[in-house]
Amino acid sequence: MITRVNHIAIAVPNLELASATYRKLGVTVSEPQELAEHGVRVSFMEFENLKLELVEAFGDGSPIQRFMEKNPGGGMHHVCFDVEDLGAAVSDLRESGIRVLGSGEPKIGAHGNPVVFAYPSDLFGVLTEFEQVSTTESPPH
Amino acid sequence: MITRVNHIAIAVPNLELASATYRKLGVTVSEPQELAEHGVRVSFMEFENLKLELVEAFGDGSPIQRFMEKNPGGGMHHVCFDVEDLGAAVSDLRESGIRVLGSGEPKIGAHGNPVVFAYPSDLFGVLTEFEQVSTTESPPH
Repeated sequence: MITRVNHIAIAVPNLELASATYRKLGVTVSEPQELAEHGVRVSFMEFENLKLELVEAFGDGSPIQRFMEKNPGGGMHHVCFDVEDLGAAVSDLRESGIRVLGSGEPKIGAHGNPVVFAYPSDLFGVLTEFEQVSTTESPPH
Repeated sequence: MITRVNHIAIAVPNLELASATYRKLGVTVSEPQELAEHGVRVSFMEFENLKLELVEAFGDGSPIQRFMEKNPGGGMHHVCFDVEDLGAAVSDLRESGIRVLGSGEPKIGAHGNPVVFAYPSDLFGVLTEFEQVSTTESPPH
């Protein structure tokens, strides 16, 4: 069900500082995007094979607020896998005894695609996102 | 200096259990390798664009022992970047105020290539490995 690693997210206390640091190391880092409805600001570090997402808490009740309280200096926050069929992925997860956060109904994630998250405690301490990535340029009619 | 993400390591309490779980999700996971001199056992999960390394402590004084004491269920342990020239990378890190663990002299890592690690506290809580990956089949004469 899993085809590739979509991204790895690193939570940081200050997006501009983190971006500047990685730029000094020669990494291309995108300008910050404010995703108010997701409670985060993000920038992407571009590597040949993968994007690393820098994430900063935004506004009240950010989903990364608790992580930042435990890890004020930042840290690796989650891994996201591409899947072809999110409904099938949720079934596979449940059959394997891996719980899905919330109702299990996919939500629209920060990149505009349907996503679910699995419980970290069911996947060896790793908060894991599964994202259904469209394989065509336009949705089917 | 950084070209691509070499791997992400996930520390787990039981390599066989973690491998079995990811195999149930359709991931190809390699057989465990015992790297006694590095104090770990490892398996690799293969994705189209990246390998994720599952790491279990092995023997006394494993380098991941302290991490496992803090995170007994496991967790994301480190990220490793490919660099073309490790000496230049160490200079760049130092010029950016990022400290390198130990003397700064590269050591031979778990994959047989020279590596250095940077202090997590200097890179937003992320233990970061830099690996010089040979771009030719055989070393130069």
